[in-house]
Amino acid sequence: MNTILMNDDIPANIQRQHEDVSPVDRARLTGQTPVVIWFTGLSGAGKSTIANCLERKLHAGGHHTMLLDGDNVRHGLNRDLGFTEQDRVENIRRIGEVAKLMTDAGLIVIAAFISPFRGDRELVRRLLAPGMFIEVFVNTSLDECERRDIKGLYSKARAGIIPHFTGISSPYEAPERPEIVLETSVATADECADTIVRYLHQSV
Amino acid sequence: MNTILMNDDIPANIQRQHEDVSPVDRARLTGQTPVVIWFTGLSGAGKSTIANCLERKLHAGGHHTMLLDGDNVRHGLNRDLGFTEQDRVENIRRIGEVAKLMTDAGLIVIAAFISPFRGDRELVRRLLAPGMFIEVFVNTSLDECERRDIKGLYSKARAGIIPHFTGISSPYEAPERPEIVLETSVATADECADTIVRYLHQSV
Repeated sequence: MNTILMNDDIPANIQRQHEDVSPVDRARLTGQTPVVIWFTGLSGAGKSTIANCLERKLHAGGHHTMLLDGDNVRHGLNRDLGFTEQDRVENIRRIGEVAKLMTDAGLIVIAAFISPFRGDRELVRRLLAPGMFIEVFVNTSLDECERRDIKGLYSKARAGIIPHFTGISSPYEAPERPEIVLETSVATADECADTIVRYLHQSV
Repeated sequence: MNTILMNDDIPANIQRQHEDVSPVDRARLTGQTPVVIWFTGLSGAGKSTIANCLERKLHAGGHHTMLLDGDNVRHGLNRDLGFTEQDRVENIRRIGEVAKLMTDAGLIVIAAFISPFRGDRELVRRLLAPGMFIEVFVNTSLDECERRDIKGLYSKARAGIIPHFTGISSPYEAPERPEIVLETSVATADECADTIVRYLHQSV
């Protein structure tokens, strides 16, 4: 240990980095490999349901997790953003940066957002080290999402009451090479979450 | 347990909240009380040095921590912001929201920012439950900070090269009732960090 660093009377910022707590140190304390599990898919595809189910399973297994979704981001950090294309890009950019900071804290981050643009998701992927970004495509068809229309948003979008609605009046760009594809028409949320848990055990 | 909640075939968002992993669940797993330890003070006051020293001590004690400072926020989440008054307000607002999300994840968050405006710091305090925001005023005088001028910023600010510089060309509003006041002229960074650790043991 460098003895100079033991002297706290030295001015700030001089080589102090050498002893700082690092992301590796924090991950070691959690005993897990920090990753970002990023759900993308249409509104109503089942992202939040599966994400919550996944977090319950990981938490029950003793993992340190954090779930980011519209509920805790849109009313706080991104409350100044609307739903124009520009604001949606900034929405995902900020969430990506927060997810990165949370992996630096040692957490397994679960993010559930429509995140319709391929380029935005790629930006988040590139913020992280290779293998740390796990893109989960919740592949529920527009027809099925619109049939469910759980929050009544599709009917409002069709009526023109909600503008810039993904799948109706704004594009959704499906992932080209997602790490995981989930088919909610043939698997329950519980089964979908198990698929992700298996992936984590095998690949992380 | 509500049996309806066990059926994963039900549409998303129907009462699923009841079984979601909560901030309380996440804090229980870390075995600690999540708080935000917020350092405020002039540039060069010693915030980062003490914050890093504090994180080392807490980490060594097995606590799950995350340090937010200019290094990991200004180049990422807040890279779109400058140093005008408006941008400084938004800078602190976003950091506060991220700190809140991190306490929801069960972490002890250490934030080290000049954060010159009283109102901004109060906004962060109000994001959190009572007792969760611990304001630490690093009370190093302007004269002393300028004498140290570790990064050469004060001379540049005096020369007008850096505009909006806190203490020179932009105001610093000292806290009126901070939880902790640190006097770096009479205590080392190590002693200052110990003061905070004692506060946490006694008050949190």
